[in-house]
Parts: sequence; C-alpha cells; structure tokens
Amino acid sequence: MQQQYGQERQKLYDDIRPQHLTPLWEVLHALVPPQPMTPCVPAFWRYRDIRPYLMAAGKLITAEEAVRRVLILENPALPGRSAITQSLYAGLQLILPGEVAPSHRHVQSALRFVIDGKGAYTTVAGERTTMHPGDFIITPSWTWHDHGNEGIDGVSEPVVWLDGLDIPMVRFFDAGFAENDAVGKSQPVSRPEGSSHARFGANMAPVRHDRKGLASPIFSYPYSRTREALHTLAREQDIDAWEGVKLKYINPATGGWAIPTLATFMQFLPKGFAGKRSRSTDGTVYCVTEGAGIAHVGNERFSFGPQDIFVVPSWAPLSFEAHQDVVMFSYSDRPVHEALGILREEFLD
Amino acid sequence: MQQQYGQERQKLYDDIRPQHLTPLWEVLHALVPPQPMTPCVPAFWRYRDIRPYLMAAGKLITAEEAVRRVLILENPALPGRSAITQSLYAGLQLILPGEVAPSHRHVQSALRFVIDGKGAYTTVAGERTTMHPGDFIITPSWTWHDHGNEGIDGVSEPVVWLDGLDIPMVRFFDAGFAENDAVGKSQPVSRPEGSSHARFGANMAPVRHDRKGLASPIFSYPYSRTREALHTLAREQDIDAWEGVKLKYINPATGGWAIPTLATFMQFLPKGFAGKRSRSTDGTVYCVTEGAGIAHVGNERFSFGPQDIFVVPSWAPLSFEAHQDVVMFSYSDRPVHEALGILREEFLD
Amino acid sequence: MQQQYGQERQKLYDDIRPQHLTPLWEVLHALVPPQPMTPCVPAFWRYRDIRPYLMAAGKLITAEEAVRRVLILENPALPGRSAITQSLYAGLQLILPGEVAPSHRHVQSALRFVIDGKGAYTTVAGERTTMHPGDFIITPSWTWHDHGNEGIDGVSEPVVWLDGLDIPMVRFFDAGFAENDAVGKSQPVSRPEGSSHARFGANMAPVRHDRKGLASPIFSYPYSRTREALHTLAREQDIDAWEGVKLKYINPATGGWAIPTLATFMQFLPKGFAGKRSRSTDGTVYCVTEGAGIAHVGNERFSFGPQDIFVVPSWAPLSFEAHQDVVMFSYSDRPVHEALGILREEFLD
Amino acid sequence: MQQQYGQERQKLYDDIRPQHLTPLWEVLHALVPPQPMTPCVPAFWRYRDIRPYLMAAGKLITAEEAVRRVLILENPALPGRSAITQSLYAGLQLILPGEVAPSHRHVQSALRFVIDGKGAYTTVAGERTTMHPGDFIITPSWTWHDHGNEGIDGVSEPVVWLDGLDIPMVRFFDAGFAENDAVGKSQPVSRPEGSSHARFGANMAPVRHDRKGLASPIFSYPYSRTREALHTLAREQDIDAWEGVKLKYINPATGGWAIPTLATFMQFLPKGFAGKRSRSTDGTVYCVTEGAGIAHVGNERFSFGPQDIFVVPSWAPLSFEAHQDVVMFSYSDRPVHEALGILREEFLD
Repeated sequence: MQQQYGQERQKLYDDIRPQHLTPLWEVLHALVPPQPMTPCVPAFWRYRDIRPYLMAAGKLITAEEAVRRVLILENPALPGRSAITQSLYAGLQLILPGEVAPSHRHVQSALRFVIDGKGAYTTVAGERTTMHPGDFIITPSWTWHDHGNEGIDGVSEPVVWLDGLDIPMVRFFDAGFAENDAVGKSQPVSRPEGSSHARFGANMAPVRHDRKGLASPIFSYPYSRTREALHTLAREQDIDAWEGVKLKYINPATGGWAIPTLATFMQFLPKGFAGKRSRSTDGTVYCVTEGAGIAHVGNERFSFGPQDIFVVPSWAPLSFEAHQDVVMFSYSDRPVHEALGILREEFLD
Repeated sequence: MQQQYGQERQKLYDDIRPQHLTPLWEVLHALVPPQPMTPCVPAFWRYRDIRPYLMAAGKLITAEEAVRRVLILENPALPGRSAITQSLYAGLQLILPGEVAPSHRHVQSALRFVIDGKGAYTTVAGERTTMHPGDFIITPSWTWHDHGNEGIDGVSEPVVWLDGLDIPMVRFFDAGFAENDAVGKSQPVSRPEGSSHARFGANMAPVRHDRKGLASPIFSYPYSRTREALHTLAREQDIDAWEGVKLKYINPATGGWAIPTLATFMQFLPKGFAGKRSRSTDGTVYCVTEGAGIAHVGNERFSFGPQDIFVVPSWAPLSFEAHQDVVMFSYSDRPVHEALGILREEFLD
Repeated sequence: MQQQYGQERQKLYDDIRPQHLTPLWEVLHALVPPQPMTPCVPAFWRYRDIRPYLMAAGKLITAEEAVRRVLILENPALPGRSAITQSLYAGLQLILPGEVAPSHRHVQSALRFVIDGKGAYTTVAGERTTMHPGDFIITPSWTWHDHGNEGIDGVSEPVVWLDGLDIPMVRFFDAGFAENDAVGKSQPVSRPEGSSHARFGANMAPVRHDRKGLASPIFSYPYSRTREALHTLAREQDIDAWEGVKLKYINPATGGWAIPTLATFMQFLPKGFAGKRSRSTDGTVYCVTEGAGIAHVGNERFSFGPQDIFVVPSWAPLSFEAHQDVVMFSYSDRPVHEALGILREEFLD
Repeated sequence: MQQQYGQERQKLYDDIRPQHLTPLWEVLHALVPPQPMTPCVPAFWRYRDIRPYLMAAGKLITAEEAVRRVLILENPALPGRSAITQSLYAGLQLILPGEVAPSHRHVQSALRFVIDGKGAYTTVAGERTTMHPGDFIITPSWTWHDHGNEGIDGVSEPVVWLDGLDIPMVRFFDAGFAENDAVGKSQPVSRPEGSSHARFGANMAPVRHDRKGLASPIFSYPYSRTREALHTLAREQDIDAWEGVKLKYINPATGGWAIPTLATFMQFLPKGFAGKRSRSTDGTVYCVTEGAGIAHVGNERFSFGPQDIFVVPSWAPLSFEAHQDVVMFSYSDRPVHEALGILREEFLD
C-alpha cells in the first residue's frame, strides 16, 4: 500500500501541517526506540588543562560581576545547550580570596563538590558552611545562598568546586523562577555553623520538626566523615565487583536522596581493582577526589587522576580500573528515573 | 570592567570552546530565568476540522501498517518535535471496524481518552477493555498492549481517541526501550474483562497482592462512574471558583496518580460558570467531553465544544466560562513537577 | 548455684519488693515465650441462639437509654474483660424501628457489619449511610456518629449489626477520650448520602483534598459491589488453597487499611472448597454472610451458617470447608501487627 | 424504665452469661471514658538506692544462669505484671567483668541505655558494640544478641544499663516468639565494630541496600555525638519552653523512629530552666544522664540526679526544673500511638 499511496499520503501530510498535525507512523520508530539513543557522548576534562582558563577568567571578571564565575562543561555533542547530558548541568566555579558571589535563590537545585583550595564558604538559608576539598554541599531549591572566600587559618587560596545542577530539567519542565537578594551581596547569618548538623546530622532529629521541601535539611557532608566510612567498609572487604564500595548521600529526614532531582554518590576503588561492566539509563558525571585509574565508557578509555571530571551518557557500558586507591564523587538524574518508573540498569560480564 | 576586558574575554571564550567549556555569566539569565519562559504557545484543535483528515488517513494506511494510525497534535511553536508541550505528547488515534493495531510494549506510559465512536477495545497485559466515549484507559510502562475494533451490539463504527504519552520525557531522560510482540498481532487474552476492576476497583484489594510498577492496577475508568461522581458533587454545590468540580484519577493501590508521569483529571463546570484565573507550572492538555464554553488561555480565547482539544502552556493564566454544563478531561506532567519539588501554582483574582 | 543460694535469693526478692523491683530471671520464660501463648480460646456464637436475647433486650431498654444497645461477645477465657481477643471488641447491636442511638464520638474506631434487617442508617461526620445486610460501614476515630431506624421503602424491621472496635487497644495504650453531642440526639446532616463515595469511591479523588486522619474517607462499602467483585474473581477461578477468594477493604486515599487499627476482609469460598491450614499472629473475628460450612479452629470444629460469628485466637491453626458457596466477613488487629513489625503467618499442609 | 425493668434486666444478664454475652450499657462509660484513666501511677527509682540490690544479685546468680540478670522496675500500681506502664517494660541489667549474657533472639525489641561502668559490649547480628555511659544501643526484633564484659583499656568494672522493651505490647497482641542460640553463649562476630555506622551512620547509605525490618540499621548511637548535638543547639539558644532541647533518635534509612515500637529521646535542660507543663497519651520512662533538678509528674514531685529513673503515666501533667545543666534520656510507646492514630498531646500554661 505504501508505494501505491505515496503521493496521496504526502498530500495529506501537506494538508494537515497548517493544522499542526503530523503523522505518527513516519516517526514512530524514532519516538519509541528499541533502546536509548542518546545524543550525548562520553567526554573527559583534565583538571590541570582547565585550571589555567579558570584562573584567566579570574582576572577578566569578578565573582560579583559574573554573579557566578563558572565555566560550564558542555557535552561535545550538545554545543550551546549548557548541558553535560540532556538533563544535567555541570560547571567549575572559581572564587578568589576576598570575593563574594552574591546571594540569590532559584528553583534549580545545586550541589557543590569541592575540588581545589581552602578558605571558601557557602551560606544557605542563614547558615554558613566552610568548604574543604572533598566536601559535598547542597543548596536546595528556592533557598537563598551565597559564596565567599575569606581564607581560613591564615590560608588564602583560590577555591574551585564542581557545580552540579538540574538546570536542563527545570527548563524542560518550564518551571524556573529566580530572585536576587534585595538586602545585599551576602545574606545575614542567623544560625551558627554546624546548626543543621546538630539538628539532623547525628542520626537524631528535633522532636517536633516540620520539614518543608524534599531536600536534605543538612547542607554539608564533610569529606572527613565520608572518607572514614568508605575506608571502614574497604577494610571490611565489602567490595562490589562492579562498583567497589559505593555509598549514596541521603536525606536523614527521609532516608531518600539528598536532593530530589540529583543522585549523589561517593565511591572507593581499591588499588588493583578491575571492575566488571555495567550500564544504566541515568547519565552520570564523575569527579575524582583521590587516586588514579582508567574509566572505560562506551568505546572511550579515560585515564583519570585527581580532580578530573568525565561524563557517562545513558546506557553506555562503564567499567573501572584502579591503579591506586581511588575515591570518586558522582551525580546523576537517577531520582527522576526512579520517580518516573523508567530506571533500568544492567550488570554485565 | 566589562568594556575594558571585552576583547580579552572574547579571546578566552574562543580558547575554551575546543575544551567544551563556555562561560556561565553570558547565559546565566536565560538559564535561571525570573519566571518560566516556555517556548510553547496556547493552541486549539477543533475536532470537526480534524476528523476528515483522520478519516482520510484511514483510507491511506491501515492500522496494521501504521502500527498506530495517529495524527500527532504538535505545539505550533515546536514544529517537528512531536510534542504538544516540551514534555507531553498528544495524538488522535483512529481504528476502523475490523482493524487491529498490533501488540507492542514500551517504556513510555500512555493514556487513551475515548472521544468518538463505539466498538473498539484495548487489551493490556492479557485483559481486554471495551472502549466507550468518555472512558479513560491506561497502558502502563512496559506492558503489552494492542487495540482492535470488532464492533459492539451490532454497531460498527470508526473509533477515535486521544492518546496522551510521556514520549518527550522518556526521550529527554534517554530511557526508552520498546519491543514488538513476536507472537502475533494481538496478544492472547488470559483474564476476563473486568478482572482488574474486581481485584482493585471496588475500594478493595487482594489480601496478599504484590504490585509491581507505579501505575494503577486498574486499566479502565469507565465514564459512567466518573460522570455519576461529578454530578453527585455538582448537585451538592461543591463548586470551586477556579475549577468547578475537579477530580483526579487515582491508583487505588496507593492513592497516588494513576500514571506516574501523567496527571489525569475530569472536571465539571455548571452552566453559567464564570471561573477565576489560575496558573501553574505544569502544562496541560484539555479534551472536552460534553457541553460548550470558553477557555481563556494567556491572551487566547478558545470557544470550545464537545471533542475539541486545547493546550495550556506552563504558567499561562487560565480561566473558563461554561455556556452549558461542561465535562472536560485533562492531563499534565504534574506528577513529575511534584516528584522534583518544582510545582508552583497560583489562584488569581 | 540455685539450691545453694535459694534462701538468699528469696531474701533479696523480699527486700526489693517494696522498691517495686522484681527479678527477671524468675519470669523470663513467661515474658519471652518460645511462641504465642494466648489466654484466648476459640469460640462460636450461633446467631439464631442469640437473636432472642437481643430482642428481649429490645424490650427492656431503649437505644436512647442504653446509648448503644449492644450485647458484647466475650471470649470465654476473658470473662469481664469486654473483649473477644485481648485486643479486639465485638458486640451485636440492635436498633428498633423508630429508635435513635444518640450522637457521640470517641477515640476508639468502629466498624459495623450489617447482619439482619433493613431500614437503619448510620450518620458519620454529617453524612448519612443506609445500612443493608452485608454492608461494611466505618466510624473513624473521633468522628461524630449516630444510628437510627426509620425504615426503608415502607419496610420497618429490627436491624442488627456486628460492632467491631479497638476498645481494648485504646484502653491498653491509655489513650481514650469521648464526648457526647451537646446539640441533640442526632447530629445535623450536612451532606447528601453518597457524597463521600462521589469524592473518593470511584477510583478518583478531589484534586486538592487535604485528608486528615488515617481512616478511609468513604464510610460505607456496600455489599452489592463487594459481592460482585468476589463473584467475578471466583468465576475467573482465582481460588487460593488456603483462603479461597479474599479481598481486603482499603482506604482509597492511601491504598492502606480502611481503619488504622482494624483489618477488614470479605472472602468467598466456593461450594466444595476444602482449604489448607494456616495460622497467623493476628486474632480474627469472622461473621458469615452467605452459605454454610465448617471452620476448624485449633482443636475446635465450628459448623457455621449465615449470620454466625466465631473468633480465631492468635496462632491457632485455621481451615475451612464450604458446603455451599460461602461469603464471610472478618476483622483482625493485623494493621497493628504490621506497624509494630510483629506479624507472622504460616501456610501449612 | 431502669427501676421498672431492674429485675428483668438482671434475669437477662444471668441468662446470657453462659452464652458469653454481656450488656454493653452497664460498662459503656468505663470502656469509652471521657479521658484516659490509666491504672498506672508516677514512680521514681533512685539509682543509689537500687545499685546495692543489683550488686547483691550479682553475687547470687551469674549472668549466664540468669540469661539476663535484670531487676525489673514495676509500676507500683501494676504489681506482678512486669511492666512500668501498661505497654512498657523497664529493667536494670548488671553484667560483671568476665561474664557473658548468652545469645538469644525474640520478637520483642529492646533498647539499652548505659548508666554505669565501662568495659561491656553488646553484639547484635554479628557486630559488636562497645558500651559507654550515655550510649543508646538497640537490639531489633528477632536479631541475635548477647552481652559481655571484657573490660576496656585495662578498666574492668561492673556495668549497668537500663533495658527498655515492648514486652507488654507483644504479650497483649499475642505475637511473641523466642529462640536460644544453639551454637554457643556468644554469637560469632562476623563484622568489625563500626561496620553498621560506616554503612548508614554518616548520612550516607549503601547504594543498593535492601533493608529488611522496621528498625534502624545502626545499633549504637554513641553519647559523644548525641551530647555534642545537644550542646550545639543549646548554645544556639534554641530552647523550647516545655522541653528544652529535645532530639529523637532516628532510623537513618527512613527518618522514622529507631525502633518501631519505642520512641527514644535525648534532652537537654539548661541550668535554671523552669519548664511549662505538658501532657501526652504516651507513657514515658526517663533516665537522667547528667545534672539534677525536679520533675513534676501529676501530683508528684521527684528530685532527680544522675542515673535516676522515673515514669510518667499517660496524660499526667509533666514539667521540669533544672538546678544544673541536665541531660536526660527517655522512651515511650509513641510510635504505636502514632500508627494507631491515637496520639494526643497538650502544651499547657
């Protein structure tokens, strides 16, 4: 029937186009593919290659003028989209001694994973958190937040962290709102540092707390505790053949993800680890904290060291080798895959 | 500093582009807008204008060749995207007497809202459901489903329904899988019609059921019961100033949404209703079942009657007037907005 | 050591008694038994033997004077405890034509399962529900409720139902509050009959409902729908070897139990059914609606017919034979066993 | 009618008693009281008065012979019931240097709150936890557990802790099972100390954990962290007028209670605190860790110091005065009140 009706069909398509109608059968296979066909590609950023550009940016624009002095990591296959996967944003933010990145808030949730330097802080909802390399810090949706760098213990260094946000998701769902703080560059600090941790971080909680929002009530997950937990389990030899020792950051008020849109993980691979392959539908951004090794991502082979960053697209086979003890942070859009009921993963080999 | 450093900045941008880096500060306002700036526009499809094209399609391609003979309703501002909002798909499906739309399954969840004709059925996971105008039917993620039209009570008519799917979401999150049924055009029927309703539809449930998946275990929500519920509440004068009487379809096993990715509603507006304005971040597709009136959507004014379809983009102000008693179906991406913690709505006037 | 120290131990026990101290080791085995050692016994009440006493009570006290004219079914091993198991209360309530059982409310949750007669109603939170044999009706914790008997369709009969309450639990946890209605015998009716069902009973729910409390928002589960569901599944031959076809009543707003303290079930056994034995930690009260058969409860053998009632204590082996098609209602304290994490059940043979 | 029918009613009561029937109207007021009428009374145990009896017990029976060498704290109004309220059990357990309390498991959940001495441990599900004063340790339902005292850092002391269990609840619901360990006195240790904490205690969790049961996956909540959290909040001046600073122990996998049947709290009252009165339906057992003050419980006035224990029955008005900085542990049956929907509390004055 196809050949016979070819011309007539084309005429129908032309007739209906002005009605904003289009035939499904011409695109069905692309719309409902047999398996994920992501436009994203694996990509790798070597920190020592990027750092000079960040420092150059530090000379060309202030944190205050930039609002956020960030170089966005764009997926090479999505140029101009400000996205590292279709749904995830990643950037490297620099804040120099004495600077302030002014207070604002937005619907987009953010994570900060500190990779370089000492002396910065983030303030979230009136509580300041000092930032150390390896610390994981969140700024939940619609909370006022600002960053600064006042030095610490006499040390005054440029500080760089990885920003992970759900910007593409909020854009896709057309739900973005934002406000700048009318009061000033920095919001007033109303609670002492450690306050949220005292309330929710000690496996305890206020007896009559009334938590709003889905995000974790603790803003900061210090590397010192994370590292200790990973090493305790590593000594216990509880090493998974695919993932080594992998923990997820949780919201202590619910046991769920720390951020409702972004899964966040910290992972240990012992020296000599040669992991099996796995793949999953959630695209993932990795950031190395300690050690060196190789990540096999699809047909790519990334030789990584500390502070390097790479992205694993949906359904790309992934495996790791560790040449030294490795600690890696990662984040993905897994919570959304779970909420939508579309998460799929395979453990291969 | 901006002018002074203009050239140097541009040089930096050029230098970092090959590294797949781009400066946030040049795009920050667009990435984090003060309020939603959807690319979608309000749009309206008058069923009596579209129906002839559907019938023409019925002559040019069979349901079996097409797999699904559907005209996609595309948002005029998103041509070629097969999407009615950035996250939602809508189409009108025709199945003629004697036809079969063959069995397949996919990660994408679908809803069917019947708008024209009698005699068709949908089979989901081995159970057949007869389709009547006003019925709401779901095919959950990864369940085998096929459609056919064998007539009913000697009546044999073309049957048209609205298909609502989460195709753009699954594409955005790169999580699509699909399979055609190797066994045959129609899956075997393994349970009598009404079986799921007997298990879960009578405000009861099997004593030791082990439900998998997030979708409702009942596939069909017949219009007869929906209509009766709406009219009972209308007689009770429980009329909301914005929405009249509005019920949502629920998953009786959880009390949550019938479909994890799509909110679905049925709404009654009494004759003479002149509703207040509201807006919300979830874009919504409406399909009129009974009655006539006017929908004010942003700056548009849609005069609607039975079977007409229109789309309300994110954050567009919306209000209704009813010239007769109106019953309307609608669906949106609200469950995802809720899961992500990004739903916002305002009741105005 | 025991003999040697016998006297000294006894002296210690005597010394500490005034301090309200007592040695665990003398009672450990009884406190922490190897398996449940309930003080309850199986028991059976033949309705035709009880009915004359109910009617006699109807002549000796009015519903209004009695507040509730009920004969409590006491476990023979718990005389004076007003309890059919340690945690459950059961009673038979009679309301004569023209009577009113006045409005009150209490923390205790109640269920009504109608077993005899037509023409009565229950009013809960301003909504009246007509009572038919086989209907299951709830009065949630702390809701105003009253009963009356005005006849229906010219029929005016004594009406008897089974009351099931969590009175012993609320007493055990010392949490009982109660109030009589100051306004009058019957609370004012503020919503038409069927209102709750229109809101929550059609597998739909109000779009922005704000449910308080844990109990189901529908007060009445009519037998007509329950019976139809059971018979549909029975025709489908979905017959469990232990329980036949067994459905639980659910709260449509959550998918959980209709009442937070009491599990409620309806069960069909086809004629000829000879079930396998099972046992569980939740004690259960059964009330037969249709048919006849035998219940084997521990070492007891109860030959039951319509309207008969029996109790199965915790962990007593239970099996059924059906001489005719049987429909049976039952209720237990299972939700509490689940919430406490102490439910255990075994399917034997 | 009452007088007139007095004799006839009595005859009816006599007639129905052999049928295990009894008239509700004679007992309605007691069954459904206007407010809680607990049989329990407030009571106080001064540790320094009790300790000699415990040490005497230590000479008269070994931990192994006793299985658990415990003096039960009985509510003075419930003699012989082994209960401190109708639903709660409390006891003081002594373990001497070199002793082992052999391994067993039971449905009953237990908490241990360490009050005196160093050098003991508890092993739960293959993991040993060292016990220090102020530590809170749980043994979840049906987990193997044993205790021992091997000394620590050369220190070898008698160790005493408060045992809190749900024994009366499990007895009331007839759901108790128990087993002794056939293998030996102490279960084998299969995981290093700190293992559970590494998995779940650092606001992180294993990425693919499959938690069974309702209890917290961490067995030990060390006083060092609890105390630090309380003092941080105290310095922040976040002092509630009724409760000072009060935190609850939580299950980090869910955010819920650490034990499904027992709420557990730690509370700080600053020196000079003179709290307002409150009351609630959950009966509560208090154990003082640091400081001294006065507890007003109903009409009683308890002057407390470190290690003292007292019980507050349901609905008894309660307020505190602190003469020094006070830290107090407490536990109650609140999770069950919440699950049953019967919790009520009032903040007075």
